[in-house]
Amino acid sequence: MGKYCFGVDLGGTTAKIGLFSPEGDILEKWEIPTRTENGGENILSDIADAVLAKMKERGIAKDEVIGVGIGVPGPVDDSGMIYRAVNLGWGVFNINETFGTLLGLPVKAGNDANVAALGEMWRGGGMGYKDIVLATLGTGIGGGIITNGKIVTGSKGAGGEIGHMHIEDGEPDTCGCGNHGCFEQYGSATGMVRLAKRRLAASKEESVLRDAQAEGTLSAKAVFDAVKDGDKIACEIAEEFGAYLGKGFASIAAVVNPEVFVIGGGVSKAGDILFQYIVKNYQKYTFHACRNAVFKLATLGNDAGIYGAAKLVLG
Amino acid sequence: MGKYCFGVDLGGTTAKIGLFSPEGDILEKWEIPTRTENGGENILSDIADAVLAKMKERGIAKDEVIGVGIGVPGPVDDSGMIYRAVNLGWGVFNINETFGTLLGLPVKAGNDANVAALGEMWRGGGMGYKDIVLATLGTGIGGGIITNGKIVTGSKGAGGEIGHMHIEDGEPDTCGCGNHGCFEQYGSATGMVRLAKRRLAASKEESVLRDAQAEGTLSAKAVFDAVKDGDKIACEIAEEFGAYLGKGFASIAAVVNPEVFVIGGGVSKAGDILFQYIVKNYQKYTFHACRNAVFKLATLGNDAGIYGAAKLVLG
Repeated sequence: MGKYCFGVDLGGTTAKIGLFSPEGDILEKWEIPTRTENGGENILSDIADAVLAKMKERGIAKDEVIGVGIGVPGPVDDSGMIYRAVNLGWGVFNINETFGTLLGLPVKAGNDANVAALGEMWRGGGMGYKDIVLATLGTGIGGGIITNGKIVTGSKGAGGEIGHMHIEDGEPDTCGCGNHGCFEQYGSATGMVRLAKRRLAASKEESVLRDAQAEGTLSAKAVFDAVKDGDKIACEIAEEFGAYLGKGFASIAAVVNPEVFVIGGGVSKAGDILFQYIVKNYQKYTFHACRNAVFKLATLGNDAGIYGAAKLVLG
Repeated sequence: MGKYCFGVDLGGTTAKIGLFSPEGDILEKWEIPTRTENGGENILSDIADAVLAKMKERGIAKDEVIGVGIGVPGPVDDSGMIYRAVNLGWGVFNINETFGTLLGLPVKAGNDANVAALGEMWRGGGMGYKDIVLATLGTGIGGGIITNGKIVTGSKGAGGEIGHMHIEDGEPDTCGCGNHGCFEQYGSATGMVRLAKRRLAASKEESVLRDAQAEGTLSAKAVFDAVKDGDKIACEIAEEFGAYLGKGFASIAAVVNPEVFVIGGGVSKAGDILFQYIVKNYQKYTFHACRNAVFKLATLGNDAGIYGAAKLVLG
């Protein structure tokens, strides 16, 4: 029985690598640069070299390593096939096979957002649950869905792309994906700033957020800080934002009926006050059999990816 | 190795029972009444008696039977626990254990809509696929979701309750579930009739549907028949109906990324013309990685439940 496993969270700038015990204790973590030139041809060999060097440094033999999991910014199916990753310069190939050959160890690859959900289930905000939805509210909405302890990968690795649910008609702005009215146009950190700008433009009422806008510091956090100070317009923006999130989560619940929604990303820095606005709307719009779902903050931050990648290879 | 398995589709009036080969060939099917009196206390023993009598009649020994699957009209979790079934008078208990003891055979229970999806995947419109969404467009919208060949049960057996996704704000009518703006208020057979009545009331334009309404024969089929005859108002209703379904299916795809949507229920009797209206809207609203999904008609009709129940016990 192996005593170690590695988890890799591959991003467009750096690859984070973690060495774990099978119980989920992190023994060491470090980063290496991601070299995206020439179609990203060096990325996997760089990571393999780093892992093998770490094993040598620590005197870890191959038969002591259960395997290496890796989360990748692109759609990955259950066989480890990636269907292009623009940030890495990658086309279509099988990561499990290519990376496994370089390492001489078992490899399991997954989409980074899905893998982060697995990490939060294993050792983060979703610990103790087996049916979870992770929603990372940042520039967009990243999603990862776990049912009965397993990632919902989907047919082309696009399971959990909840940021692109259609939830509003008539939206004039275009989402990053090219559509109009996607969930992340309202429910992300960026979406909340959009809602705030629209609300500020709709009247001349006083608000501390007008100063923030003038100074270029209007953000989801600024809105929630103003809410805590009782700013009327900020409260209205938080209500509208919470309604979008409550409705979107209610629709997700009707599909996969999770036990817990784990909320991460920049918006989650607002803390528990966020849940006041989300939960009442979730309760209003969700199907009665889904009302028992709880809401938790993600706790692993940027380490969710390496935890989840390690868990991926543990099965 | 067993040579037989049984699939039971339990409804509030009758229980359908099928005897299958492990390859999915149906050898015999029949029905018995569902006795719902006294909290439905006789239902499972009646079915067990019927199954055991059939085995005796055919000279089938217990070790030749792989097991008995059963689909039930209520939320059932992965352990076989049912959380009330109002149509049967049942409270909370473990079906796998209770029914298994009565039969002396392995039992696996699931929600009837989810089990029907498994049946359509095994031998129906979803054959050859492993990531499917079954949408039964009838009085409401029944849903069943399969990812990687397994039912998405959800934490309380409410996975696949897609009819209760919130997809419209400001709906004055109340859904059967008590909410307003649920998917099935627009996308079911009943929903289409509602849309038709609203459209007819909104103008005085001529339409054959006005006669149908006066005669009490306004139905989803009547609308699509009128579409085939070029009726302008019927075409507008079909467009609106298709937009709701396309948007709803696009949102489901962003969660579970299926290969195929299998459409059953009364609305599916309209045939392939239905897809003209759904698919163009699905393509418009769905995330790009989900555009490859195909749409198929369900083919097993009322037998989907017994097929899926048999498959449930085969794993």
